[in-house]
Amino acid sequence: MPELRKDPVLGRWIIIAKERSRRPTDFAVEDYKTKGGFCPLCPGNEKTTPPEILVYGRGAEGYANCSDWQLRVVPNKYPALVIEGDLDKEGEGLYDKMNGIGAHEVIVESPGHEDQFTFLPPEKMILVFKAYQNRIKDLSKDVRFRYVMIFKNHGRAAGASLEHSHSQLVALPILPRMVVSELDGSLSYFKYKDRCVFCDIIRQEIKQKIRLVCENDNFVTLTPFAPRTPFEMWIMPKVHHSSYSEQDEQSLASLTEIFSESLRRLDACIPGVPYNFVLHTQPLRSQSLDHYHWHFEIVPKLTSIAGFEWGSGFYINSMPPEDTCTYLREVF
Amino acid sequence: MPELRKDPVLGRWIIIAKERSRRPTDFAVEDYKTKGGFCPLCPGNEKTTPPEILVYGRGAEGYANCSDWQLRVVPNKYPALVIEGDLDKEGEGLYDKMNGIGAHEVIVESPGHEDQFTFLPPEKMILVFKAYQNRIKDLSKDVRFRYVMIFKNHGRAAGASLEHSHSQLVALPILPRMVVSELDGSLSYFKYKDRCVFCDIIRQEIKQKIRLVCENDNFVTLTPFAPRTPFEMWIMPKVHHSSYSEQDEQSLASLTEIFSESLRRLDACIPGVPYNFVLHTQPLRSQSLDHYHWHFEIVPKLTSIAGFEWGSGFYINSMPPEDTCTYLREVF
Repeated sequence: MPELRKDPVLGRWIIIAKERSRRPTDFAVEDYKTKGGFCPLCPGNEKTTPPEILVYGRGAEGYANCSDWQLRVVPNKYPALVIEGDLDKEGEGLYDKMNGIGAHEVIVESPGHEDQFTFLPPEKMILVFKAYQNRIKDLSKDVRFRYVMIFKNHGRAAGASLEHSHSQLVALPILPRMVVSELDGSLSYFKYKDRCVFCDIIRQEIKQKIRLVCENDNFVTLTPFAPRTPFEMWIMPKVHHSSYSEQDEQSLASLTEIFSESLRRLDACIPGVPYNFVLHTQPLRSQSLDHYHWHFEIVPKLTSIAGFEWGSGFYINSMPPEDTCTYLREVF
Repeated sequence: MPELRKDPVLGRWIIIAKERSRRPTDFAVEDYKTKGGFCPLCPGNEKTTPPEILVYGRGAEGYANCSDWQLRVVPNKYPALVIEGDLDKEGEGLYDKMNGIGAHEVIVESPGHEDQFTFLPPEKMILVFKAYQNRIKDLSKDVRFRYVMIFKNHGRAAGASLEHSHSQLVALPILPRMVVSELDGSLSYFKYKDRCVFCDIIRQEIKQKIRLVCENDNFVTLTPFAPRTPFEMWIMPKVHHSSYSEQDEQSLASLTEIFSESLRRLDACIPGVPYNFVLHTQPLRSQSLDHYHWHFEIVPKLTSIAGFEWGSGFYINSMPPEDTCTYLREVF
């Protein structure tokens, strides 16, 4: 059983997900699946993953776990958290821990092994955003869970262990540190100004236009004022809303359009760039929040200096967001 | 002039240190100096670095910036922050920024290009710890600075851009986020318990012995209860003190002994492992703090999953600290 543990100084939670008989020397082992190797996410290999939780695009003749699909959600075969059991919160002297209860799922974004998320046609990319909503709504029924974190690692340098395009979902019985910080920070601002800080950011960026990469009727993409890395981008809905899962079909179509454009601009600037993106949305079963604003953050993996930086909480960025914005805007 | 910028939601500060005419395509460029190439930190190449700030081990015949030295501190040739100027704090709409005033120095730990910090003899390693003290004390006289962050990137994967063994120092006009979180977290604990949380951790770990890697009269090395990565280690003084720079010679000798042993144990488990270490100490010109306890944190760079994790504040660790502790303890 994995374990959730809390740092007694920082309050930061981590997951201890012990892998089977892993030894120190295993850390040198390379296990990235290359094009020639076996891919468990490709059509025809459905039996090598746990049974599917959700499927889109299956024809009338299809049956569960057959190879006819456009998008597929399956449990992670090596989950960081497990779905069965109780939390059993307990102390160990001054430390706090609980069982690693949660969900860890893989969203297989397309049947094509070579397909890249960045270049999916809109009718395929929108299925990914719908799947995120579907899974959040479903998992919110489980009262043990407080947050669903959705993220994508693209490219080995960004942490992807399989080449076939996929995102991941982790349902957690606690709120991650970054979510707590965002909720606290935006609440402080709201108490002081009586306005949403994200709405204020969007207003200022649309007016200043120096960090505005692109926009459409419903969304903006901007390079944030204080980015952790060069080419970091935030995609934000123009109209205030704290919950991603309550967006309607038209909003998701608009999101697909700007997400696709933003990633294609990034890839045109730095071809093949590895990146992570993370969905930032409100906690499960929360009421609508006036001070919080859902969005996506896209963080390219460009420098190895992150090693120190994630250890200290302090970032050194070698390219101002105004410059990266100019590159992103002018590349097409 | 570099710029310090604050994230308006999280309060996280970052440094924008614009490098000369850097372009998106430059991020693919490899610039790690290998053994055959020119090394600006080697003896004889002193003219290729800015003039030295501190030198140890120079003979009576030596002169400033000559090649006779055992340890040398020089300004970083490409500093993230600059020493000359005023902070000029200002707003830009809802954003906050200030000039990137600070110091960015390189501690060249040994003249030998092949020498590794891990394997330095004690009489050489202690010079490094003395140099850290010396520079903190000197920089604390500059009232513009609030914190001196000292860290080492060992190995390219951990962010080292030069192979020759060195550490770095950044003097900052603000407190980094991680320091604020540690001070806040330990103060909350102190208010509740009237004890230092770090002292409590040390007491529990010495008693439990399941995460205690090694100890001597004055220090313990432990694998923390909630580590971010496998083989993370904390080196902590047994006697409560919040300030590293006030440790006496005997304490530094004892620190050298346990630091050397801890790194050699780590290297024996995973030969050549890249790592970062960061000194955690109280802010400059602070009084002694009852709730804070200086220490070093050593974080091996073993997985590329950090890309996502430093973006979300959430860590998944595949090996419990009790297991890594057993490996570290039994490797000799």
